[in-house]
Amino acid sequence: MTQTTINLNADLGESFGAWRMGDDAALLQVIGSANIACGFHAGDPVVMRETVRLAQANGVSLGAHPAFPDLQGFGRRAMQLSTQELEATILYQVGALQAMAAAEGGRVTHVKPHGALNNIACADAEVAATVARAVRALDRELILLAPALSALEAAGDAAGLRVGHEVFADRTYQQDGQLTPRSQPGAVLHDALACVQHVLRMLDAGGIVTADGQRLPTPIHSICVHGDGPDAVASAQQIRLALEKAGYQLAPLTALV
Amino acid sequence: MTQTTINLNADLGESFGAWRMGDDAALLQVIGSANIACGFHAGDPVVMRETVRLAQANGVSLGAHPAFPDLQGFGRRAMQLSTQELEATILYQVGALQAMAAAEGGRVTHVKPHGALNNIACADAEVAATVARAVRALDRELILLAPALSALEAAGDAAGLRVGHEVFADRTYQQDGQLTPRSQPGAVLHDALACVQHVLRMLDAGGIVTADGQRLPTPIHSICVHGDGPDAVASAQQIRLALEKAGYQLAPLTALV
Amino acid sequence: MTQTTINLNADLGESFGAWRMGDDAALLQVIGSANIACGFHAGDPVVMRETVRLAQANGVSLGAHPAFPDLQGFGRRAMQLSTQELEATILYQVGALQAMAAAEGGRVTHVKPHGALNNIACADAEVAATVARAVRALDRELILLAPALSALEAAGDAAGLRVGHEVFADRTYQQDGQLTPRSQPGAVLHDALACVQHVLRMLDAGGIVTADGQRLPTPIHSICVHGDGPDAVASAQQIRLALEKAGYQLAPLTALV
Amino acid sequence: MTQTTINLNADLGESFGAWRMGDDAALLQVIGSANIACGFHAGDPVVMRETVRLAQANGVSLGAHPAFPDLQGFGRRAMQLSTQELEATILYQVGALQAMAAAEGGRVTHVKPHGALNNIACADAEVAATVARAVRALDRELILLAPALSALEAAGDAAGLRVGHEVFADRTYQQDGQLTPRSQPGAVLHDALACVQHVLRMLDAGGIVTADGQRLPTPIHSICVHGDGPDAVASAQQIRLALEKAGYQLAPLTALV
Repeated sequence: MTQTTINLNADLGESFGAWRMGDDAALLQVIGSANIACGFHAGDPVVMRETVRLAQANGVSLGAHPAFPDLQGFGRRAMQLSTQELEATILYQVGALQAMAAAEGGRVTHVKPHGALNNIACADAEVAATVARAVRALDRELILLAPALSALEAAGDAAGLRVGHEVFADRTYQQDGQLTPRSQPGAVLHDALACVQHVLRMLDAGGIVTADGQRLPTPIHSICVHGDGPDAVASAQQIRLALEKAGYQLAPLTALV
Repeated sequence: MTQTTINLNADLGESFGAWRMGDDAALLQVIGSANIACGFHAGDPVVMRETVRLAQANGVSLGAHPAFPDLQGFGRRAMQLSTQELEATILYQVGALQAMAAAEGGRVTHVKPHGALNNIACADAEVAATVARAVRALDRELILLAPALSALEAAGDAAGLRVGHEVFADRTYQQDGQLTPRSQPGAVLHDALACVQHVLRMLDAGGIVTADGQRLPTPIHSICVHGDGPDAVASAQQIRLALEKAGYQLAPLTALV
Repeated sequence: MTQTTINLNADLGESFGAWRMGDDAALLQVIGSANIACGFHAGDPVVMRETVRLAQANGVSLGAHPAFPDLQGFGRRAMQLSTQELEATILYQVGALQAMAAAEGGRVTHVKPHGALNNIACADAEVAATVARAVRALDRELILLAPALSALEAAGDAAGLRVGHEVFADRTYQQDGQLTPRSQPGAVLHDALACVQHVLRMLDAGGIVTADGQRLPTPIHSICVHGDGPDAVASAQQIRLALEKAGYQLAPLTALV
Repeated sequence: MTQTTINLNADLGESFGAWRMGDDAALLQVIGSANIACGFHAGDPVVMRETVRLAQANGVSLGAHPAFPDLQGFGRRAMQLSTQELEATILYQVGALQAMAAAEGGRVTHVKPHGALNNIACADAEVAATVARAVRALDRELILLAPALSALEAAGDAAGLRVGHEVFADRTYQQDGQLTPRSQPGAVLHDALACVQHVLRMLDAGGIVTADGQRLPTPIHSICVHGDGPDAVASAQQIRLALEKAGYQLAPLTALV
């Protein structure tokens, strides 16, 4: 049977205090699910609540985007937390966003780790298991949104969680299914058209298509797009249009997983 | 009809990172309800989860103790937050604790503001209304634990919340029912026996008994005791014993409000 | 004797981590002295060092811009610190910037409190004295940059500090020499030409000219301009050009006080 | 020529806000040089100033103890900072302490990295070089206090800094001169007498003596003792007494390097 629905997800609510980041209002017109910063790498209580409100108004499903406690480093710097610390840190952040959702009559339906935490969880089975355990401890109905073929996806499966498999519109893949490191040439697709083709090729193939053309079968529930950078929103819009033109119905993550 | 049950509450989980504060294990043997720090003035995700676990193990009901974002000042320094900021700040903290409770199979059943936020909310009707609105937005079943005859209690009533009325075992009261400021002589009762007598006199009178002997009728659901200071736990134990001897049954807040 | 030199000062280095704020590079072409955020309301160690480097490269003198410890509130929310806390907090921030200056072969030559701290220090003699005492404890050669006719200016004089008197290009003044509160109509001049005329009128009058046309004599060493807002840098440039056309020589604060 | 003077150093000023840690007053009677927390892993502006004041009163020389920005983790968790971030982070912290010293009529004379930063700097030549570069950028007269035979010591030498070589009283050494990891048996000496003998043996040998009895020649300027733990101060006192009895004169670090 052919896949007919697909989700677009993006990171949102990354402003903090007096500082603005991203064009959330525009991006919310494009995506179906939002990964909302929880105050540890970006966002603050006011920004979180406002982002939840906006997402609700746009019919976009709510996801928590927990990170290492590192505002200055935007959660992009690796930190060595104990298992106990990491688990409690994730609970804390997801809970804070759940409260915003409750206050706005909504509900957090997925969790996606941010930045360095996500990178480590994709490669390190123990960290991945800790993330999955935190999500499971909180609410077994929560979807863990994880890169397809990553250690995090495997940990989510092992924990019995609902797992959303995502691919990246603007990143190429190595033979093992992992992202080409940004330090290597060709890691990032800068052209909107290239992103569109990359996405369609993978959906068509029913799996990740690596930089050297190999096909690695995997379900694909969601495409991760970005809102930062000058052309990001325009690129995301083009991807959405191309998907619709190709016959896909765009939906929140909860409709797919 | 005579009151036969009473609650004891205390602030808990005030350690942070490598720093310890209070003898939570001992205090949990005495009290029925815990006001647990939520990471803004004290506590951190690990401490919060551990405190929830300990409280659960002791049959002590879970309360969130939100504060101004001021770790260095322990939430005791007045800060001027906008209504929007304050409301979101409270949601954030209570939500974080709710996640810890959920992970440990429990449930947050009350909210009590901490330190400078509590002081201001007891005197300023607008701040009090903001606190009540935050609690109500989150969960209408949450009990707002407020000093008897305070603006916060009034705001909780006006918001249609369940309101727990508390008195302080070691603080004297002025003619208007407000606490004698710490800057004035006789504001604090340092002797355990004096605290015991103060508590019994108020319960007997069915209201606050001021320093000059006036009676201000009010329901009293809970007695606030303290865990810091060298004799604090011993004093709390004596209060509990005296209450039991006087025929009161000790109970979690949820059993009274 | 007629005044022939004047200083322009502005707040700089207000980016933080991944968040950008202000067009520092453009503003450094216009001003003679920079008030550099010290990490408590804005700025971080990397931003501070880079700002010092840029200011040095532009011949702009270095000032520390200490604030309340409130990154989320951008130092604009009133906080109640003890005298001891406030004094140590200022020392800490100025010292941190002095280290950046030392590492770049420069020297911090003035201090100007930020936001809510500045507002309170302009009205509250005790807070003003604490600020002055902190500056004096650190280095008696440091210039305290204070609004003309404020309590902070008086405290600087009383402490025997070198005091720079500043006026605001875009703010009107009340009969007592204090700024018209932003909540009142006419508090802020939004038009660049109006700012230019306001500045020239005050320099010509040798003092503050109030909204109702009264003249309050005071030395004026520096004009505060702003870098935020869409037209801020253009407006600052116009003020500078008008001053040069009127025969004033632009100089760092150290050349005037 | 035989060594006749020796320094004892310890970490100080590790209280934070309402939380106390360590018995600084007692330890200041024993040591000659203090490594003072700078607010990133412990300490706050008030604690820093008070610690400087106490150290000055006891004739103890002032050292900065910069760390990763991680209050909750007490600077003990590894973090991945860029070279630029790390260098600025160290400048910031040392500068803040220098301001406290200046306000108290003193002077910071050494720098010793804390916790995870120190561990990494002892093993990673690039991090070590960054630390040395930060110290050098600030003040070439500053002593870098580094474990004997570590990468940090080598980096200090290469940068042309004055380098203090320290050994640990309560830690054993491996064949390569590095500390036995805490995870291994015998890594820590818990007995005061064993510490005393360990210290005297190394001073006598003119170098590190490894757990298996090898001698690794190195100058030894300072012995690191600890103030935390129930018997720490007593143990430090015994080490001092033993050193005095063996004919060593105790001195601040500045007298040895």
